[in-house]
Amino acid sequence: MEAIKILHTNSGVGHDSYAKNSLLQQKAISTAWPIIKEALQDFCTHNIPTTFAIADLGCASGPNTLMIVSNLIKQLHHFYQNLPKQSLHYQVFFNDLPANDFNLIFRSLPDFLENLKTQIGDDFGPCFFNGVPGSFYGRLFPNKSLHFVHSSSSLHWLSQAPEGMEMENKGNIFIDSTSPENVIEGFRRQFQKDFSVFLKCRAEEVVAGGGMVVTMLGRTAKEHCYAFELFNLAMKKMVAEGMVEEEKVDRFNMPIFMPTPEEVKAEIHKEGSFMIKRLEVLRTRWNLYNNNSNEIDSSTGGVGIGSSYNVANCIRSVIEPIMTPHFGEPIVEQLFDRYKQIIRAEMFNKRSEFIFLTISLTTI
Amino acid sequence: MEAIKILHTNSGVGHDSYAKNSLLQQKAISTAWPIIKEALQDFCTHNIPTTFAIADLGCASGPNTLMIVSNLIKQLHHFYQNLPKQSLHYQVFFNDLPANDFNLIFRSLPDFLENLKTQIGDDFGPCFFNGVPGSFYGRLFPNKSLHFVHSSSSLHWLSQAPEGMEMENKGNIFIDSTSPENVIEGFRRQFQKDFSVFLKCRAEEVVAGGGMVVTMLGRTAKEHCYAFELFNLAMKKMVAEGMVEEEKVDRFNMPIFMPTPEEVKAEIHKEGSFMIKRLEVLRTRWNLYNNNSNEIDSSTGGVGIGSSYNVANCIRSVIEPIMTPHFGEPIVEQLFDRYKQIIRAEMFNKRSEFIFLTISLTTI
Repeated sequence: MEAIKILHTNSGVGHDSYAKNSLLQQKAISTAWPIIKEALQDFCTHNIPTTFAIADLGCASGPNTLMIVSNLIKQLHHFYQNLPKQSLHYQVFFNDLPANDFNLIFRSLPDFLENLKTQIGDDFGPCFFNGVPGSFYGRLFPNKSLHFVHSSSSLHWLSQAPEGMEMENKGNIFIDSTSPENVIEGFRRQFQKDFSVFLKCRAEEVVAGGGMVVTMLGRTAKEHCYAFELFNLAMKKMVAEGMVEEEKVDRFNMPIFMPTPEEVKAEIHKEGSFMIKRLEVLRTRWNLYNNNSNEIDSSTGGVGIGSSYNVANCIRSVIEPIMTPHFGEPIVEQLFDRYKQIIRAEMFNKRSEFIFLTISLTTI
Repeated sequence: MEAIKILHTNSGVGHDSYAKNSLLQQKAISTAWPIIKEALQDFCTHNIPTTFAIADLGCASGPNTLMIVSNLIKQLHHFYQNLPKQSLHYQVFFNDLPANDFNLIFRSLPDFLENLKTQIGDDFGPCFFNGVPGSFYGRLFPNKSLHFVHSSSSLHWLSQAPEGMEMENKGNIFIDSTSPENVIEGFRRQFQKDFSVFLKCRAEEVVAGGGMVVTMLGRTAKEHCYAFELFNLAMKKMVAEGMVEEEKVDRFNMPIFMPTPEEVKAEIHKEGSFMIKRLEVLRTRWNLYNNNSNEIDSSTGGVGIGSSYNVANCIRSVIEPIMTPHFGEPIVEQLFDRYKQIIRAEMFNKRSEFIFLTISLTTI
């Protein structure tokens, strides 16, 4: 199963779309914002490019796509406020896999620019927007053409589930603490391979001294993501009720791996092109509204406050497109109904949180 | 009426889509190909960029979008065949208005690259593809970032119909020989303004000595495009039959102007950033299959041979999206039925041809 062919979030702006269900990802960006800001500032203190080139890798299509770009441009506009007006140009690259809904992003851009003008005045330089369809586990940009790279909630997606693991991760579609050690090891190796390729490609593309901040799902101890563990439970229920064949579940592995900070560090050191400036572990509880931060301006489009409904829907908007070809449309609704019930019951469990790793890097 | 908000070809790959009805535009590219090739060769003889950056402005979304890019890459691969393998990188920018169906282009790219590999081997350098949503009557790219610009069947579209012309071009939606002189003059002025802005923007974006080849609908004498004149006739029939209000027709002007070679030359000289290397008048008869050229490889997806049906459908796929908001969905089918009948009757009229101007330019 090659993830590049099918991996994308739910398209459009409907009820189950990613655009309407991405509060968790918004929270991840918001929590990481001080680190992003710091990385930008470090670069801006020493560099004044004619055109500041930013890439958002795995940008998806929804309010977060434009929120992060809006905040990056506003921050740069602020850092460079002493330059002559309109002298700094911005080039923004929206990257995701070819199946992403780029049309949705592109059609929002005229209004987005209008909003930006009302917020910071119209004396900021021209913005050149580009969509870049392709896997970030490969080259996407010319040599030394980017000043700053951002990626959020994307790098825990592998290029593919490790080969030879079908029928090994029995009863689960996500790896979790009940998965056999050889399966976890297979996923770890795939992560190491993919992440190393990612770093190597970016090292070619980012200018010397350029910055990169990536935020991805991670874990700290041996236990894996609780929300995904519960998803395995929902799937087991479906099997027990005879609604999904057990063999279908055994055969399917979600190409996701959540590394520990140590695993991430080890790969960065081994690959050798980047220096780690920061590596932070950020925790986000499922009931997001309890600890919402206002550090980042999310006025470009919030998605409502958190609830069990939102967590389940958020996961659904991300994993439905990759699951449906394997399991078929008919079971989707029932599966996510069960998942919602389970999530609701576990809202106050101490493990009901997502762990994100934010890593701030600079080219050596 | 601001064309940028609504102007796009019919989306998708259905019966009335641009993707299925773009033989005329394919023919325009094909006929202009020797001029494009010559312009590329002139540049390649004196320059070896690390990453060769090409932009296709007004690329639409259909087989032609990829056909021209395929041919450009193959040609460059040929010109630079003595360079070390894979040392030349390609960056391709697909530009069109934000409403264009970029998703369709992006989702074709993996197969497109596979096809290219089977045709020229896999020893060509990496290709970086970018979608650039925005009007080419404004800046789209950073300073001096493009080596070659191509645009076909796009520049006869104005940024908007000239202001104050509503109710002046009575009975017509296209300007034609029956339009009042002040209307034609208004459209000419709009063309001059738009084309001059186009040149000014590209002059900033194209490297010194870079090439640009544009092909657009044009005219040679006082008479305007016959196919559009006949469209006015179809519309008049609809009015006579009481199916469209006369006032609605009077109020609507299609933002299209087909300049003469002299009008184009005058603007280029006046603007002053580009030198004209060639300006050719190319004629394409409606029954395209009679004079099809094999100069260009269109194997990436032909759309079938020409017929009255094709000419009418081709026009429909381009103008339907801009007409429908004004005239409403219900009349579209009947209008184009009448248009098809008229076109069929005129297939062998000596005026049943399109005139294209192809202009090869280089920055001074």
